[in-house]
Amino acid sequence: MVFKNKPEIIGAFATVGPKEGEGPMAKWFDNILEDDQCGQESFELAESKMLKDTISGAIQGAGKTEGDLDVILTGDLLNQLMSSTFALKEFNVPFLGLYGACSTMTESLLVGSILVDGSYADLAACAASSHFSTAERQFRLPLEHGNQRPPTAQWTVTGCGSALVAKPTMPGTNTGIRVTHGTIGKVIDRGVKDVNMMGAAMAPAAVDTIHRHLTDIGRKPEEYDLIVTGDLGTMGKEIANDLMKKRGMDMSAVYDDCGAMMFSPEQDTHCGGSGCGCSASIFCGSLFKRLKSGEIKRMMLVSTGAMTSLTSSQQGQSIPSIAHAVTIESMA
Amino acid sequence: MVFKNKPEIIGAFATVGPKEGEGPMAKWFDNILEDDQCGQESFELAESKMLKDTISGAIQGAGKTEGDLDVILTGDLLNQLMSSTFALKEFNVPFLGLYGACSTMTESLLVGSILVDGSYADLAACAASSHFSTAERQFRLPLEHGNQRPPTAQWTVTGCGSALVAKPTMPGTNTGIRVTHGTIGKVIDRGVKDVNMMGAAMAPAAVDTIHRHLTDIGRKPEEYDLIVTGDLGTMGKEIANDLMKKRGMDMSAVYDDCGAMMFSPEQDTHCGGSGCGCSASIFCGSLFKRLKSGEIKRMMLVSTGAMTSLTSSQQGQSIPSIAHAVTIESMA
Repeated sequence: MVFKNKPEIIGAFATVGPKEGEGPMAKWFDNILEDDQCGQESFELAESKMLKDTISGAIQGAGKTEGDLDVILTGDLLNQLMSSTFALKEFNVPFLGLYGACSTMTESLLVGSILVDGSYADLAACAASSHFSTAERQFRLPLEHGNQRPPTAQWTVTGCGSALVAKPTMPGTNTGIRVTHGTIGKVIDRGVKDVNMMGAAMAPAAVDTIHRHLTDIGRKPEEYDLIVTGDLGTMGKEIANDLMKKRGMDMSAVYDDCGAMMFSPEQDTHCGGSGCGCSASIFCGSLFKRLKSGEIKRMMLVSTGAMTSLTSSQQGQSIPSIAHAVTIESMA
Repeated sequence: MVFKNKPEIIGAFATVGPKEGEGPMAKWFDNILEDDQCGQESFELAESKMLKDTISGAIQGAGKTEGDLDVILTGDLLNQLMSSTFALKEFNVPFLGLYGACSTMTESLLVGSILVDGSYADLAACAASSHFSTAERQFRLPLEHGNQRPPTAQWTVTGCGSALVAKPTMPGTNTGIRVTHGTIGKVIDRGVKDVNMMGAAMAPAAVDTIHRHLTDIGRKPEEYDLIVTGDLGTMGKEIANDLMKKRGMDMSAVYDDCGAMMFSPEQDTHCGGSGCGCSASIFCGSLFKRLKSGEIKRMMLVSTGAMTSLTSSQQGQSIPSIAHAVTIESMA
């Protein structure tokens, strides 16, 4: 998809948990939680509050008010999008719930950009969240269990990002950060069944989407400053590089992965970060600011999702995966 | 939202389970399952197969092929959209996963119409599904438990509907059934906590959306042949009528509810049907055919969703609700 009107990202806000705030990306985040329970009764309500506060932070940061928003698009990993629906109770704004597992940040930017580009909305808040303590106990084991994790495992990021996508003719738009192209992902499943091998499960979907995005636009990887996947982690990142080479494209010089960027090796997260909040907080925290400063001129954000559930994994099924892509350029 | 190009619904297909096939709407459905396990190992995979077959049925019925589709938009009630993601493995088509609980059929028609109206897609398959045996055991109790149900309870419909939304200039479009307007719902929560009172929980969201839709367009209820909500059931239907009157609009002469339509009193479902598949199968089965025959000239579809999860209800939380609306007209 080509966005003829090139919707502008006029602001973004990123929140992360204490562990993420001790990692190499710490300096970029707008808010680092001291207490990842956010004073709430449950971790689920804590995630919901984090999402609500992050969307509010993006609105305030862009000098807008809730009343300026035409729509909020969010999703998370919890059953029936509990974080999103409970956060949205606090806003008097139309809501489209999205589910793309950890691909949600890009899905929301993609649908938000369509709404704005096509003049169905003037201002859309696009967001996604995840929380270590809600995801671990929902998808894997009770937190109290303190289970051992295999070397291929990733660490669900406690984090959230929200970006405001606006019609470029709207007053107050001046970042010059524009969404120019989008590609909707396909569900791809190569048979990986191990929920501690998410990177391997998702890499084929990421490569399919990146390859289609580049081919459709008629570009090569080197025409980008950065191509960044969501949460393939260190192992999935290697697989993605290899699979792209097999398709005759070498993206390794400009390629990185938010999961691989989030933690340092000393933080003992094995293959890195995962979760919707991983690419959401890194895009809204670091990459948005680096686009704003002009350090990044053109990037492709490719959040990646493993569409597994406790039901499907307990029934012995494999992990269907998906990745959506948007190209974002700094035109200031 | 006004759809200037008025996307056309060129075909629709509805599948239901055996119980729904014994109800008053039976004659309208395109496929009534004899076995609601669809020959699969689990009810979850059965729901997934039903969704896959229903989308395929819509494609074939409209004389199209999978390759003609630019995007599939679906959602369901299962954790992490298991039915949708496993169904989508069978298609080589881009996928946007949506979650709006039982409002999903309208959410998918709404986003599909935006994509087509704005020229981001020429042909979109919009769908939603639910299955009694997957939903009951996920949200309430094991099926083997055979629990008693209170009089306000509703019965999750085993059913699925898929509609194909096309650019009106596409060859083969000739039904004259056009999507003209859309309204995105807001999350509304009036504090209902009883998961056997879904109709009461959702009615305020339905009324808010219907009222906004009519006010935005500048129409009165009597300018419609039918305003139909998703699954408020018999009790929720009464509440919705009352709440609309309190807002100064009487829609009772043209108003009905898919949940109230699905079963006869003898089928002992108490307040009627619920689930994404309820409005999906009734719209794609009955209403689409009645638009085609000209019996219905103008209708508003307002699928309604109770955004509850087992986690939120076990944590004592109330039920955030939502409703999306589209106006559909027969212009043949």
